[in-house]
Parts: sequence; C-alpha cells; structure tokens
Amino acid sequence: MLNFTFHNPTRILFGSGRIADLAREIPAGARVLITRGGSSVERNGTLAEVRQALAGFTVFDFAGIEPNPTCETLLQAVELARRERVDFLLAVGGGSVIDGTKFIAAAIPFEGDPWTILSERAPVRQAVPFGCVLTLPATGSEMNNGAVITRRATQDKLAFSSRLLFPRFSVLDPAKTRSLPPRQVANGIVDAFVHTTEQYLTYPVDAKVQDRIAEGLLLTLIEDGPKTLSDPEDHNARANLMWTATLALNGLIGAGVPQDWATHMLGHELTALHGLDHAQTLAIVLPALLQERRTQKREKLLQYAMRVWNLRDGGEEQRIDEAIARTRAFFESLGVPTRLSDHGIGADAIPVLLAGLERHGMTALGERRDLGLDCARRIYERAC
Amino acid sequence: MLNFTFHNPTRILFGSGRIADLAREIPAGARVLITRGGSSVERNGTLAEVRQALAGFTVFDFAGIEPNPTCETLLQAVELARRERVDFLLAVGGGSVIDGTKFIAAAIPFEGDPWTILSERAPVRQAVPFGCVLTLPATGSEMNNGAVITRRATQDKLAFSSRLLFPRFSVLDPAKTRSLPPRQVANGIVDAFVHTTEQYLTYPVDAKVQDRIAEGLLLTLIEDGPKTLSDPEDHNARANLMWTATLALNGLIGAGVPQDWATHMLGHELTALHGLDHAQTLAIVLPALLQERRTQKREKLLQYAMRVWNLRDGGEEQRIDEAIARTRAFFESLGVPTRLSDHGIGADAIPVLLAGLERHGMTALGERRDLGLDCARRIYERAC
Repeated sequence: MLNFTFHNPTRILFGSGRIADLAREIPAGARVLITRGGSSVERNGTLAEVRQALAGFTVFDFAGIEPNPTCETLLQAVELARRERVDFLLAVGGGSVIDGTKFIAAAIPFEGDPWTILSERAPVRQAVPFGCVLTLPATGSEMNNGAVITRRATQDKLAFSSRLLFPRFSVLDPAKTRSLPPRQVANGIVDAFVHTTEQYLTYPVDAKVQDRIAEGLLLTLIEDGPKTLSDPEDHNARANLMWTATLALNGLIGAGVPQDWATHMLGHELTALHGLDHAQTLAIVLPALLQERRTQKREKLLQYAMRVWNLRDGGEEQRIDEAIARTRAFFESLGVPTRLSDHGIGADAIPVLLAGLERHGMTALGERRDLGLDCARRIYERAC
Repeated sequence: MLNFTFHNPTRILFGSGRIADLAREIPAGARVLITRGGSSVERNGTLAEVRQALAGFTVFDFAGIEPNPTCETLLQAVELARRERVDFLLAVGGGSVIDGTKFIAAAIPFEGDPWTILSERAPVRQAVPFGCVLTLPATGSEMNNGAVITRRATQDKLAFSSRLLFPRFSVLDPAKTRSLPPRQVANGIVDAFVHTTEQYLTYPVDAKVQDRIAEGLLLTLIEDGPKTLSDPEDHNARANLMWTATLALNGLIGAGVPQDWATHMLGHELTALHGLDHAQTLAIVLPALLQERRTQKREKLLQYAMRVWNLRDGGEEQRIDEAIARTRAFFESLGVPTRLSDHGIGADAIPVLLAGLERHGMTALGERRDLGLDCARRIYERAC
C-alpha cells in the first residue's frame, strides 16, 4: 500500500425524509442561496420540500446551472451572492450543480478573476460554506472537494479542488431520484463505474481492502444499476446505487493506491468539442483504453475478470478480452453507446481532440504518467 | 437499507514516516500532554520519534494507562492536565490509551464527577482536542468517537461516545506495530473481526455495499492476519491489517444496517469479573452466540458461509455449522482460545456474569433487542 492522507468531513444524511433535517445543519440566521439546474426539482416537488425545510432562513434562488457547468453562468450566481451578502449555499441537484456550487463558493470571496483558480491554479484561501441535496447519483461530488468547470468562450474543461470545498453536509434521499429520466440514471451508473475503475484498474500494490471495496462497488452497480432502470419503484436498488456512487469518489477507494484518470481526461475533450454527456464519453473511452493498456494493467485486469465478472476459465488473454467485452456490453445494456461512430464522430475528429489534450497539458497521463499523445491517438482510434 | 447519518472528520495520516507530519496538525503554541501506556513505546523508539516531531511545543507526559483503562488512573491525568493548562492531548498507543484519552479529553473541562459521563450518561459539552499515534491495530478507536472505560472500585465496564470525541488526526504507521508481541497482534485481529461481525451478522436489509465492505474486511483479516503473525517483517500484511482494523469500526460498515454488539456486552462481563483480555472474551462468546442465534441470523450466516468461507456445498444447516466452526478454528489458529474452560472458568461462574449483565442494564441485547438473560445464559453455557 502507498502512503496516504484521508480526510472527509462531509456529514451524510441518508434516507427517506432527511431533507427535513437540513435546517439543523445550517447556521442560524444564515442568508442561504439555493443553487440549481433546470426546472425538474420544481416539477418533482424537491424544491418545495427544501424551501419548507428552510423556513426561518432568508433564502435566495439561482436556477440555470447547466450540465458541464460553465464559468459564464456561475459568475452570475457569484454576482447575486455578493449583492445579497449570502453566507451559505445550498446546492439542489446533481454533480453539475454541486460542482458549480463549489466554484461559486470559492469565487464569492476571491479577489481577481475567479477563472484563474482553474487556469492558473490560483489558491483558494476562503470559501463560503455549502451543503447539498443530491438528486442524481453519479459524480460523488456530494462527498468530495473537487469540481470540473467549463469555460464556454474557450471550450476549456478543467478540474480543481480545495480542502475548503467539502460540503458541510449532503442529503441523500433515494426517493428524490425517482423522477430522473433513464438517460440520466444510466449516465450515473457509468460515471460511478468509471470513477471506480480509474482508482482500481491500475497496477497492484497489495491494498486488499481498497481493492475489495472497489470490487464491491462495481458488483453493486452491475446488480442494482439495471434494476433501477427497469423498475423505478425499486427503492432498495435506488438506495444502493446512490450510496455506491458517493463511495466511488469520496477518497476511500483511492487512498493508498495508484490512480489513472486518463479515461476522464480523454473524455473531457469529447465533451468540450462534441458536446457529449460526460458519462457517454467515459463509456466510449474506457473499453478502448483497457484494450490499449492491457499490458500495463494486466494483473489488475485479471483480478477484475475473476472477482467482478467471475471469469475463471480460459487463458489469461482470453479472460482479459472477455472482461473488457463484458464491460462494454454492460454499458450498452444500459443504453449508453460505446463507440464514437454511435455519435457520428469519425477518425477525422482525432487530431483536434489530441490538440485539445496538448493544449490542456494532458500529455503524460495514466497511473505511471506514460500515456502520451501517441497512445491517446491509438485509444481514440480504437474507440471509433 | 435503513436511514443513517454518517460523519467522520478524523484525518488519517497513513504510512511510513508519517509521525514527522503530526506537528502540522496541532495548533501552534499548544501545551501538549502525551498519554500512553507502559514503556513499550519508549523501548521501540516511537516515543522518541513523537517527541522529536513535537519540538517547539510545550510537552507533558502521562504514562501508565492500563489495558481496559480505569477511571481511577485517568483522573490522575486529568489532574495533571488541569494543573498544567494542557490544551491538546496526544495519545500514543493502542485502543486502551486512545479510549482513555477520550475520557481525559471530556473530563478536563467537566464540572462534577466525570464518571457520571458513563454511569449517568451526563452530556459531554466540551472536550480538549486530541490526536493519536496508533501502535496497535485492533479497536478502531483511532477513527471513531467512542470509548470503553472501567471503574476498578466497582468492576464496572461502560461505554460512552460524543460527537466532540473524534480524534483530530491519527497517525497510522504500520512499521510502528512491528515490535508488538504476538498475543497483542492476535488479539487485534480478533477484535477487528468481531467489530465487523457485530455490524454484519444480523439480518439482511439489502445494504449491498456495506455487506461487501464487511466481507472484504473479514477476508483481509483471514488472509493477512496470520501472515502478520508468522512474518513480522511482512510490511504489506501489516499495513492491510492496520487499515482494516480502522475501517472495521469507523462507522462505514455500520451505516444503514442493524447492529448486534451482544458479543461485546457478554464479553465485557468476562473482562470485568475474570480479567480476560477484551479480544479473548470476544473469541469465546462469538462462536457460542452464533450457534445460539443461528435462527435469527440465518440469512446472513448463509451469506457469510458463502462469501467469506467459500462454502457452497452441503445443506444450509451444514454450511452454517461449518462457517461457525471455521470462525472458531480461525481464532484458535491465531492462538486465541475459544472456550471458558481454556481460562479455567466453569459453569459455576455464569450466575455472577448474568448478575453483572443485569446490573448494567444489558437485558435486551442483539439487533432486535430480544436477547435476554435466559439467552445470555445459554450462550455462556455453550461457551464452557
């Protein structure tokens, strides 16, 4: 096992009816800004439930945070928050809303251009405290301190994190995910799956607990992901999916092990340039990347084949092939395509994707920092 | 899955050489009281390493916290801390030292008799902050907010917890456990094993991730526990054992599931009345309890048989018998006996043990609160 530091102070309020408990988590007298996306939380009643729980606080509302939240939109919320002297933020939504809220929290007290927090890694010295009401199990943002923000003007999609940006609390009520459209549920399953593989399918360091937790998350996604899609009333499956997605990126399975994240980096370029959903890009890149990196990831791929897909027969190469094929088939079974061509993207798009990677400094990726642009090209080619 | 709240703000510094980092975790200018047990941390160099890391702080030292720490001893540390205006505690040791330090932390600012925190559940309204340097993987106290304290005068052994009693940080350096005697290593393995079963071997609530994490902890203990005993230089096994013991009782596997803890309560009486090591009592009670409660725990015992002991053949009763037998054999293989008679305790001791349970209000134990004194008697009888 590698040395690690683990710290995650976010309080999780999990289960039915927990929105009612959030007022106790917010300082008395706070001026609260609700941050959210579109109107779905209005339609399904979640926003009304949140507003009821916030009776007694001064509440403002900022709607319109988009999927792949943009700096341009978020700065409007920053302006509102500064004008109204907001001192607590409450994100009501999925990963995009929560990621966006982290940027807002850091930007409100920031002097200068807040985009430099991402573009120049300007340090976050203060942040407005915030909580979350999660409506979409997927990104894990509700229990970590990282975020990915896009700048529309330049098509840049960049990540940042800060020890000041853990949510104070997150409410995870599985019932609040019942009205999600299937596409978002499926995307969430893929997202949590690939968060797990980025921290698991690398090279072995004999970190037995981390490996087994990762395998437990993958098995749960494989078992209960499809159940959630086929029967929206299956509360248990929905609850397991929600907690799994949170644990997939709260630091636990990544503690003391190598991490990859190349699938994400190659995927970000697809979102920035072609507008694909984040999870759609992961479903395309991962199977191609595992094939291309099967030598470097050999031992963990064999472990994955055995423990996650129960593949015990046949030679080693065959088991690796089969494990990758099962991964692809799993994504396809959720209705998430795994080829660039499924989105009308051809090989001619690859040079521009590579130029994007280069421009963003993504030229030494992977758990050993040996995945360069040549290798990235071969992965995109395999994904065609 | 049941509703739950999960919150664990302890920062973990894991790995070789991490003691050097602890100064950054303590407020500048703090007056630090080191709390510890016997002289082993002096002999193996850990105390010297801690003192070196604390250069620049005003440091006091309190040695002599015993296994099953007593209120009588701990109040001496409270007196010292009050006199010297100590404002940070640093526990250097295993679970007993850390548990004791939690009591000291709560007792220093407490008005009145601190024992009432346990005996009358007097609320803890303040606590002196503290950190830990763990030298014995076992109890999980380094990443939770609970403690068990004994009062020598009355032979009472009682538990308490408070949201103010999470360690600010804990240093987990596996190398610092290398000089432990085999008996303490073996006890630690049993302790972590039974912490896990208390939260896992109950009744199913379809909490798939919690179950799989629990199974991952048990499998790791079964694999790497014996390795740690047979080869003290196996750093990887030692590291896995240390992180496993922490995760076995940090709230994660108990979130959203029923919990038992009857093995602990029946064991506490054995320690209080016969002076057995805590883990020795667990190794005696658990196999007997699982036999006695096999009907109530049937579904989880079958899952345990399959996923932990890989028992797939034979009828259900047979698999349950075999899983319990394997559990007993595992404890015995570590050198921890599983019968009262191994300690020279006969059936004649049982009435006094039952009277102790009754006096401590332990008359409705187990995950369904249906384990009364009659059932406790049958468990002690099976353990003879």
